[in-house]
Order: sequence, then C-alpha cells, then structure tokens
Amino acid sequence: MKALRYENNRLSVADTAKPPGGTEAVVRVTLAGICNTDLEIVRGYAGFAGTLGHEFVGVVESAADASLIGARVVGEINAGCGRCALCQAGDPRHCPERTVLGIVGRDGAFAEFLQLPVVNLLRVPAEVSDYQAVFVEPLAAAWGITERVSVTPETRVAVIGDGKLGLLCAQALAQTGAQVTLIGKHQHKLRIAAKRGIETEVASAMNPPRKVDVVVEASGAGAGFAQALDMLRPRGVLVLKSTFHGATEMDAARLVVDEISVVGSRCGRFAPALDLLKRDAVDVESLISEEQPLADGVHAMERAASHGVLKVLLKP
Amino acid sequence: MKALRYENNRLSVADTAKPPGGTEAVVRVTLAGICNTDLEIVRGYAGFAGTLGHEFVGVVESAADASLIGARVVGEINAGCGRCALCQAGDPRHCPERTVLGIVGRDGAFAEFLQLPVVNLLRVPAEVSDYQAVFVEPLAAAWGITERVSVTPETRVAVIGDGKLGLLCAQALAQTGAQVTLIGKHQHKLRIAAKRGIETEVASAMNPPRKVDVVVEASGAGAGFAQALDMLRPRGVLVLKSTFHGATEMDAARLVVDEISVVGSRCGRFAPALDLLKRDAVDVESLISEEQPLADGVHAMERAASHGVLKVLLKP
Repeated sequence: MKALRYENNRLSVADTAKPPGGTEAVVRVTLAGICNTDLEIVRGYAGFAGTLGHEFVGVVESAADASLIGARVVGEINAGCGRCALCQAGDPRHCPERTVLGIVGRDGAFAEFLQLPVVNLLRVPAEVSDYQAVFVEPLAAAWGITERVSVTPETRVAVIGDGKLGLLCAQALAQTGAQVTLIGKHQHKLRIAAKRGIETEVASAMNPPRKVDVVVEASGAGAGFAQALDMLRPRGVLVLKSTFHGATEMDAARLVVDEISVVGSRCGRFAPALDLLKRDAVDVESLISEEQPLADGVHAMERAASHGVLKVLLKP
Repeated sequence: MKALRYENNRLSVADTAKPPGGTEAVVRVTLAGICNTDLEIVRGYAGFAGTLGHEFVGVVESAADASLIGARVVGEINAGCGRCALCQAGDPRHCPERTVLGIVGRDGAFAEFLQLPVVNLLRVPAEVSDYQAVFVEPLAAAWGITERVSVTPETRVAVIGDGKLGLLCAQALAQTGAQVTLIGKHQHKLRIAAKRGIETEVASAMNPPRKVDVVVEASGAGAGFAQALDMLRPRGVLVLKSTFHGATEMDAARLVVDEISVVGSRCGRFAPALDLLKRDAVDVESLISEEQPLADGVHAMERAASHGVLKVLLKP
C-alpha cells in the first residue's frame, strides 16, 4: 500500500506492507489531516521514523470485534501497555510504554491503512461528516485544556495564535461560556472565529495588554511566551499547547513574583470532541485550506508549511 | 539612625532619618535576617534602591493603635493600596500598587527602625523567641507553597536545594504529612532536615531519578530546573521558589508532552508560619550561621553570600 513516510531524514511516498492487524483493528483511511506536529517531526522532533499522520477518519476493515467491521471510526492516538496503573484506569496518554500513532513507535495515518487497538476506536455519529471527523484529534487536544485548567463562564481567556490549533482552542473554550479573545496576525483566519461570536484582536494592534486569567499559547513561537506573560493577571495560568522544538527562554523570576502557573497540555479525549462536532458547536470545515491526494504527500506537507495555509487534508 | 542601604549600585551602612511613621506604625528592629533576595537586589534584581531587608522581629515604638506600643511583632512585607479588589479582600500580595519592605519602593528592616501599616503587624507569641520569629517571613513563603499546590499525605515531594529556603520548604511541607525528600549537596545542611525525620539525598549520588508528584526548585540554579523535570511524573508540578535573576532555558515541548505544570510561588501568610514556630514544628535555629552587628552590615552581606553559610542575622 501507499504511505507517506519519514525515514533516514527523508520524506517520501513509498510502497509498504499493509498493517497485519494481529490483535488490533485495521482501518482503511478515508481522510487524514496534516498537523504542525507532523511538520515538527520532519524537523527532527520526537526522533520518529515511519509513516506519519495521526489525524484521520476511516472505516474498519478487520477487527476481533466483528460488529465493528465496516464502521466509520476515528481513533485515539495513544496506545498503552494495558497493564500499568494508568492504562488500567483507562487512560494510556501517559503510559511510559505507550506508542503514539505516527509520532512514537507506531506507523501513522498517512497511508491507505493503519492499525490501532480496538479500544482506541470510536464510531463517528451519522451527523458528523468525514470533513468534520478528521478534526476530532486536534479538537480533542483543544478541549483537553479543560482537563488541566479550570475554565468557567467567569474566566477571561486569551488564545495567542490564529493557526489551526488556536482556532480550535478558541472555539472549544468558548463552549464553556468563558470570555475568549483570539489574538492573531491574519484577518482571514481571525474571521473564522469571529463568525462564531468570538472576540478577536490583531496582535500588532495591541495597546496596553489586558489582564486575563488564562492565556493559551498556540502560536508555536517563542515570542508568544513573553507576550502571554504580559497579558496575565497575577496568579494567572499560561497553557502551553505547541510542541515546538528546542529550548525557550523563560523569565523564571517573573513566574515567581507574579505567581504564574505554566501548564503543559497535550492530548484530549475524543468523546467530548465528537460531541462538539455532533452539535456543530465548532466550525472546523472553514479551517480546510486544501485537499491533496496521498500520492502527492510530500508536496502536501510543503503546502501545510506554507504561510497562510491552514489545514491540508490527505486523501488516500 | 543606622541603616544598611543600597544606592547608586553601592552597598553601605549610612546614617539616615528615622522613619516618620505618619499613619503607619514605627517598629524598633530587634533582629533581622539576610535573605538570598537581598543578595539578588545587590546584583540588580528588582531595581531597588534604599534600605535593604524584609526579615525581622521588633518592638512597636509608635502606632495609631496605642495598645500595640511595646508589643513584640513581625510584619507582612507587602503593603497594598488598600483600595483595589485584592486589598479589599485582605490580600495585598499582588496589589499592582504595592510596596514591599526592602524590595519595592519601601525602606527595609536592616535599620534601627522601620515603618509598616498597622494591618501588616502580627504579635509574636511568648513561646516564640526572637531567633525563631526572625524566620517567620521565609517560613511563610515556604508554607505558601500549600496555597498554590495541593499537598496531602499521599503526595510525593522532592525539594531541590539544601540552602535556607530548601530547608524551610522541606520542613514546612513535611508538616502536611507528605512524603518529602530534600536533595542537596551538603551533608551538614541535609542533616538539619534529617534530624526532623525528613528523607535526604546527596544530589551527586542520585541513581535513576525517582518519579515524584511535586518538585520544589529551591536551589536558585538553572540546573535545578532540568533536574526537576527529570524527577517529575507525567502531570507533575514543578514549584519555582527562587527569584534568581535572568532568563532560564526551558524545554517547552517537554512540558507539553509530559503535561507538566510549572507554578511560581512567592510570599505566604504569616499566621500559619507563626503557628508552626509556636508548635516548634520547624527547626529554624539550626539555620543560623552567624550574627553580625548592623554596623558591619556590608561584611555580613558578604558572609551571607559565602559558600556553606546559611542564615546571617543582623543586630541593630
């Protein structure tokens, strides 16, 4: 089968063996999405080699549970050992032996087929199109912020960065009733959030920074970190979402004096994200910039890294 | 009166006017303590100029509330505007217009007299000696960690740094019933905590780092930050206590992947700290390395910065 692979520091569409399945389910990928993490991996982040991709929707081709065959599914990307305390509690996201689809020790979704444990799969409700379902992973990551930080209708939130992740974070957090402002540099991107009633602000036009309770750093740029500190009230919370590579400079004394919390947030659960999509609570389709055939995967990755481009989808 | 002042980038014992008091109380300082923050100020931290010092015990010389005159007191160091929402709620520690004794816009305690709002003063119980009471400010700062992070008997805590602050943090947090390990480089300092039943570990002798829930960075060294991340479990909390000057390198991707929280912690409330001292729950007197006359304040500051020296006290 065809797959977009990163090996020996080189990205290419290659012919590879179809995943065998074994005790896991095999899923025929219908649609996949390129994430900034994929771009970071190609820059060396996480030291991954293999088939890229962790955002997908597909149809189950084979599974031990026969009732799943033919079902339209999405799949949580962390596959745990199944034995440690975390896995036993039903949450393999921090299992020390985990593999992660297309990121850690497991071939990913930029392929005709992938395999995942059955327990990772969730059926996609009929109301949710493939073009929405392919966003469930990043939307779950956005909603995952609420697992890490208390966000209520009283919370003043600023999201820095109007890229894919920022747009999802702003929309997801607005669903809590919180007062969310999305700060970015691109009017056409900010407009996507504005249409959903979210306050937006052009970064360069900012006057004295407002003081908010929570800032979500989704710009992927080190500069976002300093800007975030300027915006936070004392004892405010800075949420880090971007897995950008390399060290960032941090003014530790300032974190101490203003008693700031910096909270890392990675993956969320899929069920609440599917529910948001089912209720059409979040506009994801406006984030789609283009769709490319899997065969043109290398070009698609270049497109995804281009200025002004939001989500690039891959069609196997 | 005599005061140890830092002005025009120069430290000296100078003759200055006695504080006038006005609406505030005037306190005759009995004993004061040199903190690492004082040493940082002399290196340019906080841009402060004036009389140094924020750790003290003294006797009220004048106050609008006449019943206070002659009382042995300690004093919370943040003096708020009294009008903002924070001050109205009784907590001026983050008042944007606050002054801070010997740190921000207010002459400090390395003097024969100081002045503070009456509301900042707390009477010292008879059971607490001057040599204990002079530690109430840093002990309150140590106990203040419990305001920022949940610490229970189930919490595994590591404190990095066996200096004054680390020794106070380890002892204070052990009072919650948490499983505390103090990690440092000096056997004679670690012994102070060990005598109070706290597990200790020599930093250089560490084998594969244990995974703990909370790490308190009290070493004041950037290296403590990387070591702390190595020790934390996923979703663990790193508490920053040291107000060391300058930028620290932070591996942001690691905070995201392991979903670590970094929590800044500065000042605590005095009442619980006085209670700890009253119950002799924390050994502070073993932290006293030496006592110097205020007149030798410049020398005393050099001593406080010397290798292996813990608390240096100043006697006006």
